[in-house]
Amino acid sequence: MPKPELLETFLNPYPARSYEIHMTTPEFTSLCPLGGIEGDATDLELLKGGAPDFATINITYIPDQLCVELKSLKLYLWSYRNDGIFYERVVNRILDDLSAKVKPRWLKVEGDFNVRGGIKSIITATTGQKA
Amino acid sequence: MPKPELLETFLNPYPARSYEIHMTTPEFTSLCPLGGIEGDATDLELLKGGAPDFATINITYIPDQLCVELKSLKLYLWSYRNDGIFYERVVNRILDDLSAKVKPRWLKVEGDFNVRGGIKSIITATTGQKA
Amino acid sequence: MPKPELLETFLNPYPARSYEIHMTTPEFTSLCPLGGIEGDATDLELLKGGAPDFATINITYIPDQLCVELKSLKLYLWSYRNDGIFYERVVNRILDDLSAKVKPRWLKVEGDFNVRGGIKSIITATTGQKA
Amino acid sequence: MPKPELLETFLNPYPARSYEIHMTTPEFTSLCPLGGIEGDATDLELLKGGAPDFATINITYIPDQLCVELKSLKLYLWSYRNDGIFYERVVNRILDDLSAKVKPRWLKVEGDFNVRGGIKSIITATTGQKA
Amino acid sequence: MPKPELLETFLNPYPARSYEIHMTTPEFTSLCPLGGIEGDATDLELLKGGAPDFATINITYIPDQLCVELKSLKLYLWSYRNDGIFYERVVNRILDDLSAKVKPRWLKVEGDFNVRGGIKSIITATTGQKA
Amino acid sequence: MPKPELLETFLNPYPARSYEIHMTTPEFTSLCPLGGIEGDATDLELLKGGAPDFATINITYIPDQLCVELKSLKLYLWSYRNDGIFYERVVNRILDDLSAKVKPRWLKVEGDFNVRGGIKSIITATTGQKA
Amino acid sequence: MPKPELLETFLNPYPARSYEIHMTTPEFTSLCPLGGIEGDATDLELLKGGAPDFATINITYIPDQLCVELKSLKLYLWSYRNDGIFYERVVNRILDDLSAKVKPRWLKVEGDFNVRGGIKSIITATTGQKA
Amino acid sequence: MPKPELLETFLNPYPARSYEIHMTTPEFTSLCPLGGIEGDATDLELLKGGAPDFATINITYIPDQLCVELKSLKLYLWSYRNDGIFYERVVNRILDDLSAKVKPRWLKVEGDFNVRGGIKSIITATTGQKA
Amino acid sequence: MPKPELLETFLNPYPARSYEIHMTTPEFTSLCPLGGIEGDATDLELLKGGAPDFATINITYIPDQLCVELKSLKLYLWSYRNDGIFYERVVNRILDDLSAKVKPRWLKVEGDFNVRGGIKSIITATTGQKA
Amino acid sequence: MPKPELLETFLNPYPARSYEIHMTTPEFTSLCPLGGIEGDATDLELLKGGAPDFATINITYIPDQLCVELKSLKLYLWSYRNDGIFYERVVNRILDDLSAKVKPRWLKVEGDFNVRGGIKSIITATTGQKA
Repeated sequence: MPKPELLETFLNPYPARSYEIHMTTPEFTSLCPLGGIEGDATDLELLKGGAPDFATINITYIPDQLCVELKSLKLYLWSYRNDGIFYERVVNRILDDLSAKVKPRWLKVEGDFNVRGGIKSIITATTGQKA
Repeated sequence: MPKPELLETFLNPYPARSYEIHMTTPEFTSLCPLGGIEGDATDLELLKGGAPDFATINITYIPDQLCVELKSLKLYLWSYRNDGIFYERVVNRILDDLSAKVKPRWLKVEGDFNVRGGIKSIITATTGQKA
Repeated sequence: MPKPELLETFLNPYPARSYEIHMTTPEFTSLCPLGGIEGDATDLELLKGGAPDFATINITYIPDQLCVELKSLKLYLWSYRNDGIFYERVVNRILDDLSAKVKPRWLKVEGDFNVRGGIKSIITATTGQKA
Repeated sequence: MPKPELLETFLNPYPARSYEIHMTTPEFTSLCPLGGIEGDATDLELLKGGAPDFATINITYIPDQLCVELKSLKLYLWSYRNDGIFYERVVNRILDDLSAKVKPRWLKVEGDFNVRGGIKSIITATTGQKA
Repeated sequence: MPKPELLETFLNPYPARSYEIHMTTPEFTSLCPLGGIEGDATDLELLKGGAPDFATINITYIPDQLCVELKSLKLYLWSYRNDGIFYERVVNRILDDLSAKVKPRWLKVEGDFNVRGGIKSIITATTGQKA
Repeated sequence: MPKPELLETFLNPYPARSYEIHMTTPEFTSLCPLGGIEGDATDLELLKGGAPDFATINITYIPDQLCVELKSLKLYLWSYRNDGIFYERVVNRILDDLSAKVKPRWLKVEGDFNVRGGIKSIITATTGQKA
Repeated sequence: MPKPELLETFLNPYPARSYEIHMTTPEFTSLCPLGGIEGDATDLELLKGGAPDFATINITYIPDQLCVELKSLKLYLWSYRNDGIFYERVVNRILDDLSAKVKPRWLKVEGDFNVRGGIKSIITATTGQKA
Repeated sequence: MPKPELLETFLNPYPARSYEIHMTTPEFTSLCPLGGIEGDATDLELLKGGAPDFATINITYIPDQLCVELKSLKLYLWSYRNDGIFYERVVNRILDDLSAKVKPRWLKVEGDFNVRGGIKSIITATTGQKA
Repeated sequence: MPKPELLETFLNPYPARSYEIHMTTPEFTSLCPLGGIEGDATDLELLKGGAPDFATINITYIPDQLCVELKSLKLYLWSYRNDGIFYERVVNRILDDLSAKVKPRWLKVEGDFNVRGGIKSIITATTGQKA
Repeated sequence: MPKPELLETFLNPYPARSYEIHMTTPEFTSLCPLGGIEGDATDLELLKGGAPDFATINITYIPDQLCVELKSLKLYLWSYRNDGIFYERVVNRILDDLSAKVKPRWLKVEGDFNVRGGIKSIITATTGQKA
């Protein structure tokens, strides 16, 4: 289950300047919702039908007073590992969780999911203003 | 024959936010129209002249109230497999069928067809407004 | 259904010399066997479960008295389009059909199949002696 | 000698929509003008000094009432094969010929010529309005 | 916990011929052993220290009487998902499990693990004879 | 410790023209702050916890009256080698130091840091106006 | 019509040493034989059916007493421009012509022809001994 | 010493149309100024300290009444070969020389210099208006 | 100063099987020897002349009774950071240190050093027997 | 004029071990011989006909008692800059000069020359025994 409480921040050392931070990881994995119902999967269920999904997650933001701590972001992304969740919710939820915690001036989250059924999906959501 | 009735949708979980969904598949195939007349091909006709076409189909949209279900999109694209149809119609028809079913805020369809006669063709059509 | 009778040959213009001919096409498609039973698929069955497979086929051979005619090879490969057939049989059958028709000194067939269930498969079979 | 009369068209199946068609071929070849004078080359002259030029031709247009027929475009481009002609004229002439025949809303032609004397040349010309 | 009982086989359709089957997946994930002790991880432990590992697994074999069924291989590889296990054991164990079930003439397993501490690791193990 | 006094300049030979200078080096290295406290690391501390960071630094600017001397820039970037410093400070500090010394019309600094914990970070900061 | 008399040679400056010379050009073009009959094409015939072929020609040899002069090789390859000729003959004929003129210790000619009918062809022929 | 008198022009065959000409060569070489003083280097000085610089030069322009002749451009760029000159002057001088001779509507010159001291430099200068 | 005492090992879990372990890191850095004399550099000397070197280190080995512990290898490679040392010694010393500690059946070390003076260097050393 | 006297060596620090040193530079330039006669070119001649050649030089050797000093190799390669010389002589002469000075167990020199007349040339020469 996604655990936004794992996210930690530190004070932006240059709050007077609008600058951009981009973070990307090819190591995101979650589960396909079992029977279309989202939620935690036990190991048994995993083998029955909740197939793993894999994605590269790209996050870009302009910090205001806070920056996200890199290690805590890694732990937060790990917390999706055994969660059955739709692509659209993954991307919009990371946007909401980061937004609530870090309160950036601008934030974009992109989930680039591996091929399923011969089709590749990329979902992109944005919040805030760049200028 | 293209079967738009195969397309299924689910409710957009974040309708309040304008975000983008991109799907791409290199596994699209249809037939070249036999004698310039579009329509279904039987196996016999296939060998007489309705040569296979191959394309990568790129679809990008901003959902409104509905999202297209990934598996149903795959089945819909399969339904072109034995259809004799022109490139221009493939791209504009997918645009029309998706548009009618999903009613997105904005939609772009791109067909990137394999080389024929030493020439590669890419057709791109768009509907709706991005902002 | 694979149609080896479509294969045509012409006389090797340089039979005294051992030289190599390599042909490759990214446009091979067949169907996944329906319920594990191989055979022709009707359009209806296609939508029920006989999902399309896509592969790049690589063929390399040293001709003896005959060469395979390029256009006839294309037609022969098209004849797998609506056939439900396993990967292993595709590659070994092309090897057998070409071998019977062209009687090359040496022949290798490689089928490089698109990702299914997150796994990519490449099958390679060879017949005859290179030297 | 370029033969614009080879170009054929068909009716644009979606004239109500502004959409883009892109065609590209790496197989364009013409001759360098002999002594700076443009015109047809005989085989003898070819060996004396009218050296072959090679280019990739990229064509993009927004059709109005007509689309260019792909096979006729191929034949039209072949008609430059034994013509001695400057790079600048190749690109602007293709633009003029296509423009006259297809009457598109917008058209761009790009000639990407192979290295000569260690220098690569790319010429791009456009006509019409995109919006 | 790795579950070799998930592996299924089918009869090799061409047992008389020595040919090669190669399968590769970039979607392998397991856990780093917690405190150096291998075994299953609960979700709580995962967040404490059993960090996820990611790898591409490459498998190549020459079948004898049996082939491994692709879907069962996928399920078998998924069974490492919540297991704390060393790189060396992952590769050698897949080799042992496949070898015991499929009894191939020759088998190679390669695990290409993502960068950890700035260092990338690739482990390769082989069994049987190629010729 | 970063040593901005190492930076040297020479007179811009074309001050009347607004033109762009881009410099990039994949050879930047600094240390991770020990216990979150920035500062110089001794060799002993380096082995205890102040792990090395590696980055590609991209610098682009429009000179006014001065240009930065290339060799002095190299020495300045070397002066971060044994310094414990956060990513965000690295990029903003290079921006401040170059800005103070070279007084460019416009300046952008990008730090593209190697993967840590499976996540890649790119920080970009800008000062001045381009037009 | 291929003109081997265009090939010129110069004395190998290091005949005592066995060393390798490799030359490659992506600018080879000939014609497809009209009605399967090889020979020179007039401009009229070219437009009726003798379609252009394009290839990259790779030549590697170990010189004995002679080296092939680069400019003369270029002229020799140009002499195929308006010739209707099969792929297999192109490669073996270049091998024969070079062999007769340069008398190398070892020679390999590879013709890598552009896609026709979705299939790419590469022909390779060799003469002489490497050691 | 750069020799702008080597540059030659011909009449733009399509002066009524604004179109773009792009030329690029990876074969530019000059010398590093000896002791910071620009000028011609003798062979002896070359070995003492005036080290060679290498760059790719990219030139793009919109012609007005004249086009630059390709061969004369090549000779002009060769004239920097034994000249000791700074990067910034190379790019701005080519811009000035071409501008004076060809009088284009718009002109951009980019010098992409090889790594020196682990740092790569790209200088870009522009003159005129695009629209 | 290289610290081989940092290297740690663990018991090879599959000593009965000859298998290969490959590790690679692009994050190796040492110093150029000051005045040709190898040894530790102080920060002051670093700025005077002991310029940093950067390399990718590739290590491949067949373990016997021991494997090298990944984290300890990382610390060992870090210990070259402030050492003035020649390329040839880096590679051969890593070979000797690993060989003495891990006693592998076969070991190869490759140092792929960044461009210096326009020249790239790769040093490769091997010990033991593969079969 | 090539100046082998510029080459310097240092004692191989590991003469007991057979290991490989590879050096590569994309920055080699010489001149095309004027009227087929090799020799030094004055600046005037350069502009008349002795066109520049550009190559990547790859050198690989197994040292015996001596290693070539990197900076001296760079100076030696610079000494070809204004020399009119054939490709074949460039490669074989570097082989001879390095061989005479460094006396390696094995040495390979490869010259990969830029395209001239649409044809790329690579010359490779070897001396000594690898094992």
